[in-house]
Amino acid sequence: MSEIYTQDVSRCMAEVIGDGGLTADALATARAAAWDVWSAMREDIAEEGFPALSIAAQADDLGAIWDAAARLSAHCKTVALLGVGGSSLGAEALCALAQNPAVDVRFLNNPDPETLARFRASTDFARTGMVMISKSGGTAETLALAMTLMPDLVAQRGADTVADYAVTITEPGDNPIRRLAARWGVPVMDHPADIGGRYAALSVVGLLPAALVGVDIAAVRAGAVEALKVNLQGVVIDAVPAAEGAAVSLALLQSRGARMGVLMPYSDSLAPLVRWHRQLWAESIGKSGRGTTPIDALGSVDQHSQLQLYLDGPDDKMFTIIAQPLDGRGDRVPPELASHAGADYLAGRTTGDLLGAEQEATIDTLCAHGRPVRRIDVARIDPAAVGALMVHFMLETVTACFMLGVDPFDQPAVDDGKERARARLAALK
Amino acid sequence: MSEIYTQDVSRCMAEVIGDGGLTADALATARAAAWDVWSAMREDIAEEGFPALSIAAQADDLGAIWDAAARLSAHCKTVALLGVGGSSLGAEALCALAQNPAVDVRFLNNPDPETLARFRASTDFARTGMVMISKSGGTAETLALAMTLMPDLVAQRGADTVADYAVTITEPGDNPIRRLAARWGVPVMDHPADIGGRYAALSVVGLLPAALVGVDIAAVRAGAVEALKVNLQGVVIDAVPAAEGAAVSLALLQSRGARMGVLMPYSDSLAPLVRWHRQLWAESIGKSGRGTTPIDALGSVDQHSQLQLYLDGPDDKMFTIIAQPLDGRGDRVPPELASHAGADYLAGRTTGDLLGAEQEATIDTLCAHGRPVRRIDVARIDPAAVGALMVHFMLETVTACFMLGVDPFDQPAVDDGKERARARLAALK
Repeated sequence: MSEIYTQDVSRCMAEVIGDGGLTADALATARAAAWDVWSAMREDIAEEGFPALSIAAQADDLGAIWDAAARLSAHCKTVALLGVGGSSLGAEALCALAQNPAVDVRFLNNPDPETLARFRASTDFARTGMVMISKSGGTAETLALAMTLMPDLVAQRGADTVADYAVTITEPGDNPIRRLAARWGVPVMDHPADIGGRYAALSVVGLLPAALVGVDIAAVRAGAVEALKVNLQGVVIDAVPAAEGAAVSLALLQSRGARMGVLMPYSDSLAPLVRWHRQLWAESIGKSGRGTTPIDALGSVDQHSQLQLYLDGPDDKMFTIIAQPLDGRGDRVPPELASHAGADYLAGRTTGDLLGAEQEATIDTLCAHGRPVRRIDVARIDPAAVGALMVHFMLETVTACFMLGVDPFDQPAVDDGKERARARLAALK
Repeated sequence: MSEIYTQDVSRCMAEVIGDGGLTADALATARAAAWDVWSAMREDIAEEGFPALSIAAQADDLGAIWDAAARLSAHCKTVALLGVGGSSLGAEALCALAQNPAVDVRFLNNPDPETLARFRASTDFARTGMVMISKSGGTAETLALAMTLMPDLVAQRGADTVADYAVTITEPGDNPIRRLAARWGVPVMDHPADIGGRYAALSVVGLLPAALVGVDIAAVRAGAVEALKVNLQGVVIDAVPAAEGAAVSLALLQSRGARMGVLMPYSDSLAPLVRWHRQLWAESIGKSGRGTTPIDALGSVDQHSQLQLYLDGPDDKMFTIIAQPLDGRGDRVPPELASHAGADYLAGRTTGDLLGAEQEATIDTLCAHGRPVRRIDVARIDPAAVGALMVHFMLETVTACFMLGVDPFDQPAVDDGKERARARLAALK
């Protein structure tokens, strides 16, 4: 594999899997629509009209991110990351790649009193830091967490050295979290004003937490640039994986009733990336009665939980398996033990052999049951691959949204709930 | 609230939420079908023909569980739990209730070489123990993990003291894991032969890990018995929450196209319970093209990820919110800080006030958008409540399966995948 990732949608086709798949006509129609959208997007990207992606090629902000990460790591054993949705999920996806991190990053995204009590009980505030992220600066949960935790942190660590243990990321301009930061003396890094939260993983929002745990953030960006190149250089749609993926998803929705998209990597490290994708897709496309529902799964674990439903329940899903080469990796099962157990099929096999066999077997089994499967392959799970997958999924999501005629960048319906919550708070005694 | 949990399905009705809800006729039809199934089940339960539930009233096995837990805790700082699906998810749901656990239970359910390398790097084997769970004794992933990790554990800790640091749980009779246990000298506790994995949470399978982290397992059983009583004493269907829940779910599927069921607690501690339910429901009901797809969510976090889709995407879901009283709980936001930030609505409010307001606001907002919402209330999140919810969901799942004419207790489709994986392993060089 010479490219940073590859996609294979052949197992979504009726000629491969039978009636559950797409006819050539259905795919051709969706491809034509996707190509129109993609052609316009490609121009937009070339003119740097897509800041979530053009930031991938940026390098002049990395120094400030490394500096901030180095300062926090030098002074903190634990760092609480306060943020929710786009202010947390991209960072979680990148932090999952850390190897032996020197700093323990704890994601606090829920104002659950029980969780906070446990956090306080398990953390030495004298060695704890805090990263507070809110694009608007007005996210209620993040503000409440900041205002309850920061006073104690300042009391423990001192008001003079706040810059050693706290950072805020928020968009430019006056807002609640910026006012608090000014009061506490917390340094503020700018959340790009032109990148929405769920598209911000390649900015400081995702990269500062990643740098804190030692993930190579330059490699994340390089992988993102590489994936962008893969997509931009394609002159026909099946050479543009993001546009092709959007076409296949919507063709399966419209011609086969695939209302759900299951994203299932065979790697524990990618589980948080799938949660990141779940927000990206749902909040971008779930509008005006349109869209499909993203479902996160994990191989091989969910073979023992969801596979029965996937194979034999209603035929209303498209499956995407993120695969990696696993043969020969990991510890080897001693042949003599396997033989003693009566499990000769495991004799001399590695854990990676087993996981790899499950990965291929699940793809085969889904197809044998007529369920449409797209496979995405990466050569290895590393920061570059995750950066690449993030770009792929952002491009695919935006393409699919435009194909359905919904705005990928807003989330109008959730404001209603925010107002109701404030009214409820105001009505409390 | 005098009962251990209550259920309110009024917001699933058209008269409350408009066209998205059930007509009285649709509910009446489903209730009649559910009542027939329930009446037969009630007799079955009375005759102890439902071992997954009758085990809740058992007490004579608790001593052996406490003894095993005490022995492991005395000799281990970390315990790896090897198990997947029903051999892990119930235990995870119960262990999430632990307060300051003396033992760190690590769930290893994937043969991912990367995860295993990190486990080895972060664990002192000289103070590590292992609980190996497989009902059949032949689960490939669990066997592979056991055969790669146990030899090193035995080498580190000694072959004479294995009973201090290892336990196996498997059904009676000769099988691979039992043969390995005999060879290593690992004590074996019996997995009840008549309880399927996903229904086994109230047996030693869920309770031994829970006891290890200090969760009150007698309270889990007492809550389960209490919930069973609540359901068995109802003489009309709306006094039998499990049967009523099954009726409403299937009526929404059949008359309103609700192909997905979102289960969303407003408590971090219940997130693993929702993952347990996800297996229970999917593997029980996803058969012969029938069933609905369970979706796990978490409040308030997923308001910032999935709520846009839930409110304004396709109307194809039923929502269940697990609510708890939160007002006044947790740390209080200093009024002066809130005022400085310009977030007066948070002044003097606690984190629990905020989470509680979000919980109620989400229910209101879903209803205002015509989306059907069931609410389940518990007075507090504790071992008894989780035992009760487990019984509720087991009864509801089985009722729904019988209503759809599928067997709640088998999972025939997954065997195909297992055979394919073995064939792939055999074909490796």
